[in-house]
Amino acid sequence: MVAIGIDIGGTSIKGAAVDSDGKIYETFSMPVSKWEPGEVCIRKLTILVQHYIASHHLEDKIVGIGIGSPGTLDVSTGTVNYANNLRWENVRVADLIHEILPYPIKLINDANAAALGEARFGAGKNFATMIMVTLGTGVGGAIVVNGKLLEGNESKGGELGHMTIVVDGEKCTCGRNGCLEAYASATALTREAKKAMLENRDSLMWKLAPDLNFVDGTVPFGAAKQGDPTALKVIDYFVKYLGEGLLNYCNIFRPNVIVLSGGVANAGEFLFARVNQYLRAYNYGYKFTPEVQVVPAVLGYDAGKIGAAALFF
Amino acid sequence: MVAIGIDIGGTSIKGAAVDSDGKIYETFSMPVSKWEPGEVCIRKLTILVQHYIASHHLEDKIVGIGIGSPGTLDVSTGTVNYANNLRWENVRVADLIHEILPYPIKLINDANAAALGEARFGAGKNFATMIMVTLGTGVGGAIVVNGKLLEGNESKGGELGHMTIVVDGEKCTCGRNGCLEAYASATALTREAKKAMLENRDSLMWKLAPDLNFVDGTVPFGAAKQGDPTALKVIDYFVKYLGEGLLNYCNIFRPNVIVLSGGVANAGEFLFARVNQYLRAYNYGYKFTPEVQVVPAVLGYDAGKIGAAALFF
Repeated sequence: MVAIGIDIGGTSIKGAAVDSDGKIYETFSMPVSKWEPGEVCIRKLTILVQHYIASHHLEDKIVGIGIGSPGTLDVSTGTVNYANNLRWENVRVADLIHEILPYPIKLINDANAAALGEARFGAGKNFATMIMVTLGTGVGGAIVVNGKLLEGNESKGGELGHMTIVVDGEKCTCGRNGCLEAYASATALTREAKKAMLENRDSLMWKLAPDLNFVDGTVPFGAAKQGDPTALKVIDYFVKYLGEGLLNYCNIFRPNVIVLSGGVANAGEFLFARVNQYLRAYNYGYKFTPEVQVVPAVLGYDAGKIGAAALFF
Repeated sequence: MVAIGIDIGGTSIKGAAVDSDGKIYETFSMPVSKWEPGEVCIRKLTILVQHYIASHHLEDKIVGIGIGSPGTLDVSTGTVNYANNLRWENVRVADLIHEILPYPIKLINDANAAALGEARFGAGKNFATMIMVTLGTGVGGAIVVNGKLLEGNESKGGELGHMTIVVDGEKCTCGRNGCLEAYASATALTREAKKAMLENRDSLMWKLAPDLNFVDGTVPFGAAKQGDPTALKVIDYFVKYLGEGLLNYCNIFRPNVIVLSGGVANAGEFLFARVNQYLRAYNYGYKFTPEVQVVPAVLGYDAGKIGAAALFF
């Protein structure tokens, strides 16, 4: 049993056949641009998929095409209502593909696709309840219970970054204040690093980024790993707020595993050791409540393709 | 199809037969005391249930006995591991009942039973995703998705009151700081009312409670309903923090309905209008995200019995 998993990104669309064990075949790819209408783009994609299936002799094995897309989706009709980065409006993806290819099509939010991939075949496999939190420009996430996404009404739940952890706290992009995203995103980490650098001219962070414009999430981690006290304080602050957010998820879901992905998660064991220590220290109900492991995502950029395909397994 | 639903409380055990439409029969009841061993208590309960079934001629209709219990439970063996209020330790409820009655037995946390009752036959019926939040001495809760409880690892999730909404905020009973419980429980409401009363000797709240020892959650609501500005501030503060907590649940779950129960929920439309207004004002994603209704629980003390029985429907 094989499904095609497709991941629509801001600059390219990538896809591959995936079998029911999560094994991924050779990847295909095509550029995508906001200057080209969505309909044209999907028609090109359809031809590409048709050739891919033929060249891999998969015609009789394909059970469906799963597509992870950014933006606001109407999953029931397979339509991308609105995707800001691509300037797509009401692109009837499923209908357009069906003009040529007869396979069932399922559309899914791109972040959810990645989470489903990790849950079924990556860092979350063998665990009943997985929370995935993506630490990037913002903080995203998804909840997978027994291999199924928990999406809420109109599939509009899972906004894990927009949980207030400080009422009247830092301004968030969503309009509220004090969201987890305002403390645990790469953006927030960078903000705090810059603030600390301005207050500490002797911080090692200045060696890694001589100009504040060069500061990103890797700067405080790089300096902290070398023992810079200012950077260590920035990381401690970051871990505390991230930890408080993750503890909230533990108390709500009591997941078996929390998977972190996104740029910040690349900080490795230096980050994960601290986060796990924080969660153990403040675990609800002391030893009577099972601990949760926080681990990095393992499927990288394949997670979305595998997860989109997994909609058919 | 009929099941027996039983609700173990701190001073009495109540139960009733419930049919698969959620219709509840005549209730039976027996006192329970921490001075009596749990085993003795369950043996008495068994005889009572046996007589109840016989007197209602239900022998051939009963599909099972559902039991809502406080404390730490081992659901798989039907054992109450530890119930503080009753001083029960490792009471093998299912085994003891099975010595006399042959019906399948399911044990469930008492708060979860009440939530399941409301979800299946009460304020949450007809809604796919329901969050129930109980505002009492503490803040409890439960999550029901498509008629099933979301309980997490070892059934130890659903601690909805222990979500930090103010990092380093008010001390919480759980050991962390700034939990929703520390702002939205009756205990927290009473604390804030007392604080406001001490600062405002002319508040109407002093008429309703001439002594601070008489202050409970009804006092600020009573005075606020009569227009007392000090009490109105207390209520606004309460609604804001409760609202922030509920908005977090909206963003995580995007539920179709939030059901409030517990003493504070008795404040009626005066409370619910304000909470709904707060949620509408800060709804994530503006008009593109479905709103959620916050409504009061409707089954009252029957919710636990009905929910425990509903484990078999």
